[in-house]
Amino acid sequence: MLGTMLHGPGDVRYENVPEPKILKPTDAIIRLSVTCICGSDLWPYRGFNDITAPMAMGHEYCGVVVEVGSAVKTVKPGQFVVGSFCLSDNTCPHCNFGFQSSCAQREFMIGAQAPLARVPLADGTLVATDELPPDDLIPSLLAASDVLGTGWYAADAARVKPGSTVVVVGDGAVGLMGVLSAKQLGAERIIAMSRHKIRQDLALEYGATDIVSERGEAGIARIKELTHGIGADSVLECVGTSESMQQAINVTRPGGMIGYVGVPHGVQFEGQSLFFSQTGMLGGPAPVRRFLPHLLDLILTRKINPGKVFDLELPIADVAEGYRAMDERRAIKVLLRP
Amino acid sequence: MLGTMLHGPGDVRYENVPEPKILKPTDAIIRLSVTCICGSDLWPYRGFNDITAPMAMGHEYCGVVVEVGSAVKTVKPGQFVVGSFCLSDNTCPHCNFGFQSSCAQREFMIGAQAPLARVPLADGTLVATDELPPDDLIPSLLAASDVLGTGWYAADAARVKPGSTVVVVGDGAVGLMGVLSAKQLGAERIIAMSRHKIRQDLALEYGATDIVSERGEAGIARIKELTHGIGADSVLECVGTSESMQQAINVTRPGGMIGYVGVPHGVQFEGQSLFFSQTGMLGGPAPVRRFLPHLLDLILTRKINPGKVFDLELPIADVAEGYRAMDERRAIKVLLRP
Repeated sequence: MLGTMLHGPGDVRYENVPEPKILKPTDAIIRLSVTCICGSDLWPYRGFNDITAPMAMGHEYCGVVVEVGSAVKTVKPGQFVVGSFCLSDNTCPHCNFGFQSSCAQREFMIGAQAPLARVPLADGTLVATDELPPDDLIPSLLAASDVLGTGWYAADAARVKPGSTVVVVGDGAVGLMGVLSAKQLGAERIIAMSRHKIRQDLALEYGATDIVSERGEAGIARIKELTHGIGADSVLECVGTSESMQQAINVTRPGGMIGYVGVPHGVQFEGQSLFFSQTGMLGGPAPVRRFLPHLLDLILTRKINPGKVFDLELPIADVAEGYRAMDERRAIKVLLRP
Repeated sequence: MLGTMLHGPGDVRYENVPEPKILKPTDAIIRLSVTCICGSDLWPYRGFNDITAPMAMGHEYCGVVVEVGSAVKTVKPGQFVVGSFCLSDNTCPHCNFGFQSSCAQREFMIGAQAPLARVPLADGTLVATDELPPDDLIPSLLAASDVLGTGWYAADAARVKPGSTVVVVGDGAVGLMGVLSAKQLGAERIIAMSRHKIRQDLALEYGATDIVSERGEAGIARIKELTHGIGADSVLECVGTSESMQQAINVTRPGGMIGYVGVPHGVQFEGQSLFFSQTGMLGGPAPVRRFLPHLLDLILTRKINPGKVFDLELPIADVAEGYRAMDERRAIKVLLRP
C-alpha cells in the first residue's frame, strides 16, 4: 500500500510502504476514515528533530476496525473507533490516575497518514462509537484523537473552572481547541492571542471573548490591561517556544496555572522568578484517552464542532502539499482523505 | 531598645536599634511574646545574599498589640495577635484569590527579632485570638506565623488529599511542618527524607509513615521502591537547592504536583524534561494569611502541636548563639524569648 514517509527536512513522500499487520495479540488494524497533519509533524519537517531514517508519519486517526489480535476484547471488526496519539493500556497506575500519556506501556502512534494503520494496545487505546457516525461528524471525531484532546488537557491542567479568566497563547489548531475547551469548561472570559484574521474569527466562533493581536511585551501589557492588572486565572500555552512560554508566565496571575501542551523546544525556567511569581504549571503530552468518552459524546450530540479547525482538505496522495500549506501557515490544519 | 541586626556573613548582633513607631495609619506596634530564627535567615547569614547595609532581622512574630494607627479597625491594644511574614491588605484581588503573599501592597516583615515590632497593614495581616492564649501554646502560635503556614502551603500547593501518598524533601522546620500538614490533610502515606535521628523522630511523631535517609539517586530509588515504581502523588520541596528540586521532580508521579517553598537558589528547570515527566508545580512565598484562622483553631483546640519544632530556647540576648546553632544544624529551630 501507499503511506506517508518523511525522508528529511521538507522531504515528505507518499510512497510504497509495507501493509500493517497484527504484530502482537493486543493490536488492532484499522481502515482510516480520514487522517490529518499535526502541528507537531512540522518539528521534524522543519529539521528541528534529527531524522536518521525515513519516518512513518501520522498519529491522528479514526476509522473502522478491520482486524484485531487474539487478546483484544473491547473492540471488534466493523466498529468505528477513535484513539489517542498516545497508546496506553488504560489499566496501569498512571492510566488509573488519569495520565494515560505516561502509561507504563506507552507507545506513540505512527504511520497513520495512510489508508490502514496498526494500533497497538487496542483495548486500552480505542474507544468505539455505538454505531457508525454520520459522515459530517468524521472530521470532528478525528480532531478528538489529538488536537481537541490536547486543547482540552491544556484547559484541564490550567484548571479552567466556571467563571475563569483564560488566556490562550497560540492560534494553531491546538490553541483554537483550547478556546473551545475553556468555553465548555465554563470560562467567563477567554482571551485568544492571534494575529491572523481567519484564526481570530474561528477563535471568536469557538468562544473567545477577546482577541489580542500584539505579541511580546506589548501583548503582555494588553492582557494586563484587559484583566485590570491582575492577569489570568488559567493560561493555555499551545506553542512551546521560549517566547510563548515567557508570554504565558507573564500573563498568569499569582496562584494561577499554566497548562502547557506545546512540546518545549529550548525552554528553560528560572526557579526563583517562577517562585516569586507563584506561577503554577502542569504540562506534557495530553492524556487524551481520559477525555475521549466525554469528547465523543459532545461531538455525537453536536454540542461542539471541532472539525471546523480543518480548513484545507486534500486527497492523501497530496500529503506533501498539505505539509507545505501548514508550514507556510496557509492552512490551520489539513485533513487528508485516504 | 535592643534588636537583632545582621552586619555581614556570620555577624549577627543584638544591639541598640530605634524603637518602632507608627509610621502609617495602617500600622500596629506589637510587643512580641516570643520570636524565633528562620531557616531563610541563614541565606544572608551564610553570605548567599548580598548585604549592603545592616539588616534588621526577624519576620516571625506573635504577641500583644500595644498601639495601632488611626486607620486600623480589626485589632486593638491588648489583643493577642499572630501575623504572616508576608504583610498584606487582604482585600486586593490577589488576596481574594488566596495569594496574600502576592498582595498588591505586599511588604515583607522585618525587625521581629526584638521585643517590639511594627506591623504594617495590620488589618489585613494580623489575626487576633478571642482571649489571651495559655503560655504553653505560644510557641505553636508563633510557628503559625511562617514555618507552619509555609509547610501547610506546600501541602496545599502539592494538592495533598485524603489518601494521598506524599514525599517531603527537607527535614528542616518547614519540612517537618509539611509532614504535620500532610497528615492533617488526610495523606495516607507520608515519606520523610531525613538523615538526622532527632528530625526523623519528630517527623514520625508528626505523622510520617516512612523515613528515607538516602539522598540523590539512592534516595530516589528508595522512594520508587516504596511506591511500587509509581512515585508520589504530592511532593513537598522544602529546601530550595538544585539537588533537592531534582530529587522532588524525580519522585513525583506523572500528573502529581510539587509544592515548593524553599526559596530556589540556582535552580533551573529544563522545559522538555518537565513536560515529558508531566510534573505539576506550584511554589512561592506562602500565603500564610489564607490559612491562619484555621491553623490558630487547630492549635487553640490542641489538635496539633507545631511548637515542638523549637528544640532550642534562648533569651533573645543570645540570638547570635541561636544563629550558630541553626547554621551548624545543632538545632532545628530556635525560639527566642524577649
